[in-house]
Amino acid sequence: MVDYKKEIDKLLTTLFPIARSITGDGNRETLRLLQEIIPLNIKEYPTGTKVYDWIIPEEWSIKDAWIKNSKGRKIIDFQKSNIHILNYSIPINKRIKFDELKEHLYYKKEIPYTIPNRTSYYKKNWGFCLSYNDYKEYFNENEEYEVFIDSEFKEGFLTIGDLVIEGASKKEYLISTYICHPSLANDNLSGVVLTAFLAKELLKKKRNFSYRIVFAPESIGAITYCAHHEAIMKDIDTGFVITTVGGPGKFGYKQSFDENNPINHIIEKIFHENNIEFITYPFKDIGSDERQYSSIAFRINVATICKDKYFEYEYYHTSHDNLDFVKPEYINETLNIYLQAIEKIDKSIVYENMFPHCEAMLSKHDLYPVVSGDYIPKKGMIESELMCRLLIYCDGRTDLYKISQILEMPIDVIYRVANKLEEKGIIERLF
Amino acid sequence: MVDYKKEIDKLLTTLFPIARSITGDGNRETLRLLQEIIPLNIKEYPTGTKVYDWIIPEEWSIKDAWIKNSKGRKIIDFQKSNIHILNYSIPINKRIKFDELKEHLYYKKEIPYTIPNRTSYYKKNWGFCLSYNDYKEYFNENEEYEVFIDSEFKEGFLTIGDLVIEGASKKEYLISTYICHPSLANDNLSGVVLTAFLAKELLKKKRNFSYRIVFAPESIGAITYCAHHEAIMKDIDTGFVITTVGGPGKFGYKQSFDENNPINHIIEKIFHENNIEFITYPFKDIGSDERQYSSIAFRINVATICKDKYFEYEYYHTSHDNLDFVKPEYINETLNIYLQAIEKIDKSIVYENMFPHCEAMLSKHDLYPVVSGDYIPKKGMIESELMCRLLIYCDGRTDLYKISQILEMPIDVIYRVANKLEEKGIIERLF
Amino acid sequence: MVDYKKEIDKLLTTLFPIARSITGDGNRETLRLLQEIIPLNIKEYPTGTKVYDWIIPEEWSIKDAWIKNSKGRKIIDFQKSNIHILNYSIPINKRIKFDELKEHLYYKKEIPYTIPNRTSYYKKNWGFCLSYNDYKEYFNENEEYEVFIDSEFKEGFLTIGDLVIEGASKKEYLISTYICHPSLANDNLSGVVLTAFLAKELLKKKRNFSYRIVFAPESIGAITYCAHHEAIMKDIDTGFVITTVGGPGKFGYKQSFDENNPINHIIEKIFHENNIEFITYPFKDIGSDERQYSSIAFRINVATICKDKYFEYEYYHTSHDNLDFVKPEYINETLNIYLQAIEKIDKSIVYENMFPHCEAMLSKHDLYPVVSGDYIPKKGMIESELMCRLLIYCDGRTDLYKISQILEMPIDVIYRVANKLEEKGIIERLF
Repeated sequence: MVDYKKEIDKLLTTLFPIARSITGDGNRETLRLLQEIIPLNIKEYPTGTKVYDWIIPEEWSIKDAWIKNSKGRKIIDFQKSNIHILNYSIPINKRIKFDELKEHLYYKKEIPYTIPNRTSYYKKNWGFCLSYNDYKEYFNENEEYEVFIDSEFKEGFLTIGDLVIEGASKKEYLISTYICHPSLANDNLSGVVLTAFLAKELLKKKRNFSYRIVFAPESIGAITYCAHHEAIMKDIDTGFVITTVGGPGKFGYKQSFDENNPINHIIEKIFHENNIEFITYPFKDIGSDERQYSSIAFRINVATICKDKYFEYEYYHTSHDNLDFVKPEYINETLNIYLQAIEKIDKSIVYENMFPHCEAMLSKHDLYPVVSGDYIPKKGMIESELMCRLLIYCDGRTDLYKISQILEMPIDVIYRVANKLEEKGIIERLF
Repeated sequence: MVDYKKEIDKLLTTLFPIARSITGDGNRETLRLLQEIIPLNIKEYPTGTKVYDWIIPEEWSIKDAWIKNSKGRKIIDFQKSNIHILNYSIPINKRIKFDELKEHLYYKKEIPYTIPNRTSYYKKNWGFCLSYNDYKEYFNENEEYEVFIDSEFKEGFLTIGDLVIEGASKKEYLISTYICHPSLANDNLSGVVLTAFLAKELLKKKRNFSYRIVFAPESIGAITYCAHHEAIMKDIDTGFVITTVGGPGKFGYKQSFDENNPINHIIEKIFHENNIEFITYPFKDIGSDERQYSSIAFRINVATICKDKYFEYEYYHTSHDNLDFVKPEYINETLNIYLQAIEKIDKSIVYENMFPHCEAMLSKHDLYPVVSGDYIPKKGMIESELMCRLLIYCDGRTDLYKISQILEMPIDVIYRVANKLEEKGIIERLF
Repeated sequence: MVDYKKEIDKLLTTLFPIARSITGDGNRETLRLLQEIIPLNIKEYPTGTKVYDWIIPEEWSIKDAWIKNSKGRKIIDFQKSNIHILNYSIPINKRIKFDELKEHLYYKKEIPYTIPNRTSYYKKNWGFCLSYNDYKEYFNENEEYEVFIDSEFKEGFLTIGDLVIEGASKKEYLISTYICHPSLANDNLSGVVLTAFLAKELLKKKRNFSYRIVFAPESIGAITYCAHHEAIMKDIDTGFVITTVGGPGKFGYKQSFDENNPINHIIEKIFHENNIEFITYPFKDIGSDERQYSSIAFRINVATICKDKYFEYEYYHTSHDNLDFVKPEYINETLNIYLQAIEKIDKSIVYENMFPHCEAMLSKHDLYPVVSGDYIPKKGMIESELMCRLLIYCDGRTDLYKISQILEMPIDVIYRVANKLEEKGIIERLF
């Protein structure tokens, strides 16, 4: 079990206030701070680039925004919370009647004391988000207001961070998270932070497989990444989309596109091994970037392990999804679940038996006891027996995880025995 | 719900008395009367034509037949019921002792008051069918009888009616019924009548798929039709054999060759939607023309929806299978079940997503809400979400019915959404 | 039911005392005695031959062996039981201290009164097996002993007996047993004896399929046989490894590699038909020669029917696995189970329907009743109906056993009906 609680705490505090969006300096600053932890590559894709059916939009930045009432008092102030602004709002500076203004005010009646988070990335618009309580208190039918948004649109870039951690095999697994949300802690600063420390751990020793870590704005970022790494992404079969991993609520996991994919079995196994109750969310093409990665041309089986899954917790997409809600210890817990799952994934090697005709003579390879005849399997399995049982399934197609399921043995044991057989040249790693 | 009760009643009354067989003028007259309802093509196949392992037999016609007792009294009279005659009886006119005659008398002890229906199409023979009560009353050990059958065999034709209702796609579904039974109402005048009005309904508007309607004598007719439309029939995957649809008893359906074929799911769904209890009959290669259509070279998945299925009702193949047993309202009910099933089948289109890489940008195509961030799916699914969920399965192989099962949504909803996506050019119909 | 009890008894008594091993004259003598029952071919493979990862070892023979105590008294004597010797012991003749000797003494504390059976085929070694009681009684810390083993190693041969019983089809089933165990009755003299009489029965009449009978030493023998009959063995799909068939305990069967292979269904069916309780042992790549036959390159589905399966009975690999434990009537019982399974296997013919388009006209081939219309299937299935039902599945891929499962009819009935259809040329045997 790793313990990154202190570093997680520090990173959460540093990153939380930054005003992120699908483009802009907030994202660059976020990635730059992550580079202090892991050697991310920063990739910039220019405004106007066509990525499949989409076009990378203009870069958006915002310095200030507020609404003043007729007495000149600031009743909504971007400086107090960056989610007060409809993300991607156009600049505006004018006096306006309530009747017109109210079309640009977003609140959430169900939780009257919280500010909802809203966006308008692809349709020019402006607006303010506020609590329903404030809406009732500060706004009146016939009053006139002054609205001010100091935002800017320009030809710029969409920014993505990635890192390929190379293992013994070139076969890659995808680990992707999204960086476009402003000051919202569980969705998805928690995912960003967890992914950083997950990558840090993966870098500590050479793995069997390679891991492609991606920090991108949701949807348009994942699409841009796919479009610019198309062949690579088509070669990837499996991965994770990491989001909402730090709430006080229940663990859960969202299944990948094919519910029978081993990644789903592995996640459930980890929860069981840790005695953790969890909620199973079947695959749905709504949610996060699994929408892109699971699309027809890619069909990557990406699963998501959550603690307080998006859509499911009360403060989802509100100003109360903050650092009172998300705690370093929760993120650290979920990080350990991800690490354990990757431990198993990393052992899911496909071997080919070099002696497909009958069985290899294990005693010749110093792998079999010298005196025979006294073995009775119900007394517990000896290693040479496990070798025989393993070898018959090393057919160049079945991976160790699948074999561990057939033999009803922990993959760690299977993996250790496979390593011995590999050393002796009895099996060879295919991928 | 369509209401053809009056027209069904009229057609039943007109067609019931006609003496049909596997060939002959009774069949021609039946098809001619059906032409008053739908534009059937009449196809004639000459006697002696080889159709696979079979040969089209001589055409048979009959004017009169009776048995007189020793006192010259008609005790059996074809004029009273055309099922008194063993179908395809050779002509005869002679005095005969009871001992010889009794080999030519067919009755049904289990229901002593009814006349059974019997045939001898492929072996020259003659005979009379009568109730067991009459057998006991009118026949005596040592009496002599006069038997008279005024039938004729000649080089002629086997007659089939067909109609292809062309839809947007050339992909065809088969709808077949058999016309060879004389005055038997449920088996199978009910099927003939239902099929006529089903075709009439299908003609009312352009459908997505094409429907091939076939009225043919059972077995030899279906075989002849397959032999003369072999390539077309090999291209058909699915269809219905319509029979025994008008009894007072229970609804049921006979599954097609492959029990997992969607047609079987669709039929069950319709029954459930209509709150109708039904009996499931697994596929068996006995029964009706599914024997031919499901044969190795064709393997068409034909299912049958029944109301009082053949073999299962007491009056099956007897003179009591008449218009007291079969009612227009029963046929109309079953007709509506077939129509509902075809409604679903007709929506089972296979689409290909034109944007297989990641997802199409729905907002660009005016299919996505402008302000994002407030959507929580547990509050009910909005259309743009359903679009995303649908698009990920439009892989050029999976039809809308299958997708509706995956998404657990009614196919009508899926179909409506698919139409919108098709209009925008986001998906294209494959077949 | 066959009754070979007397002949089994005689053969058991004759073969039991012979000192067998993986090579040597004991094996030759065993096979020669089997030749008095069935026309076995004897095949000799020379020492040093490479067979896949293995090399055929030197031939081993032994004339005498004993241990004398310090008073010159024989306390262990090979002449009393051939399992006293560690099989493949090198020659030795010297005085030895207990401290050195004890490394060469094998006993079984759990059953203190019995002698265990041990081998050291591939590592030069010597040793004695004895009961734990004798170990305690005859051996003392500081005593000196005289050990004598008059064994010999020489360039020689490994000896295998085989017999191909040719049936109507060249498609072969494998029936293999192992001959390398010395005086151990259930493991595996019982298997050797059963296989001999099974082959004798199979020779009595022409079968549909061919049966390849193999008597070989375990592991190295099966490997040698595979290496020298590679193409033939790769063509075989299914078979039996016959072992431990004569104990007083429960029947059981070990499943073949693919648990869904028909051979497993057939064995269970036979047990049910005979009202025999049985234990199901799932496939494991430990046990006997299924390790070789199921290996990646061969993947023969070999199952094993046992009565007191190896590993499972107390006296496994001890001197108490003798003719008090194994009885002729037990072997005869198991023989009948094998024969019944082979009866079903032998009927699992694949036919092709010569009339794949629609159905053959059964009445033309004298296979259908002349007068039609009175058939109602719930009254019991008539043969012509069964013919129709069978024909639709004779697609050149599905064998009669599989069809008997689909139709839920005994294979004997299906087989009889198929024979009639074959005689008429309606179906043709593929294999």
